[in-house]
Amino acid sequence: MSLLRDEGLTVEELTVWRTLQRVQVRVTRHLEAELLVAHDLPLASYDVLARLAEAPGRRLRMNDLAARVLLSRSGLTRLIDRLQREELVAREACASDARGLYAVLTDAGAERLAEAGPTYLKGIRTGFLDLLGPGELGRIGDVLAGLDVRAAP
Amino acid sequence: MSLLRDEGLTVEELTVWRTLQRVQVRVTRHLEAELLVAHDLPLASYDVLARLAEAPGRRLRMNDLAARVLLSRSGLTRLIDRLQREELVAREACASDARGLYAVLTDAGAERLAEAGPTYLKGIRTGFLDLLGPGELGRIGDVLAGLDVRAAP
Repeated sequence: MSLLRDEGLTVEELTVWRTLQRVQVRVTRHLEAELLVAHDLPLASYDVLARLAEAPGRRLRMNDLAARVLLSRSGLTRLIDRLQREELVAREACASDARGLYAVLTDAGAERLAEAGPTYLKGIRTGFLDLLGPGELGRIGDVLAGLDVRAAP
Repeated sequence: MSLLRDEGLTVEELTVWRTLQRVQVRVTRHLEAELLVAHDLPLASYDVLARLAEAPGRRLRMNDLAARVLLSRSGLTRLIDRLQREELVAREACASDARGLYAVLTDAGAERLAEAGPTYLKGIRTGFLDLLGPGELGRIGDVLAGLDVRAAP
């Protein structure tokens, strides 16, 4: 691994990054598979419904929603188009800002989320939390929270 | 968050999972953007070239490669098609196993990897490692290694 040495990275540093990537992808696939099989609902759709449900008035500006669900603005637009056709989400203009646009959770969306929620949360339990040893949730949580704060734009 | 309570998940548990997801996606996008701008090379392509370069004889069976780069077998097949057209990777039949197929790094692929490597490794440094506090690499590395082992199929 002479490239690593040239760039001043240790094998441990590269391994930690690769393991983080692998763990995240594995859990995400587990959640996606469980949601699709049980509810025919992609994980990205679940994430949108869940973020809207948590927001005051069950609504978020499109930009805020995009930041929370880790999608590009164009990716979110396409996803909201689909959710709107399924009547799970509605679009509403923002009264105080002519350029603003809200995504709003509909009653049907809230129902769909309530059906899928237990599957999602159980997936986090079995695919992630159950694999942590004693004290590890706090340890990894502390490190991740620091990373998240220091990376925030 | 009554759904959380119903399913026996704490807010901390959900938050740690969401933060892991966000950190991973953010670093991945950082790497992807850097590689595209500087080398017109998607991150998934970089990962394939790097895994092949590390393997004995610069070759891996398609199934082993798919597992390492976190792609489905069909996703990897499409990616290898593209890399083969660019002459960065070649396919070779496996002498000892009629069903086996290898992906092999070409000299052009090794050159392309050598060009892009510093950008990738610098991206891990600036997008991830530089954001860790003292001792945090070891702490998160230990927890992730345990998760990875316990999740292995």
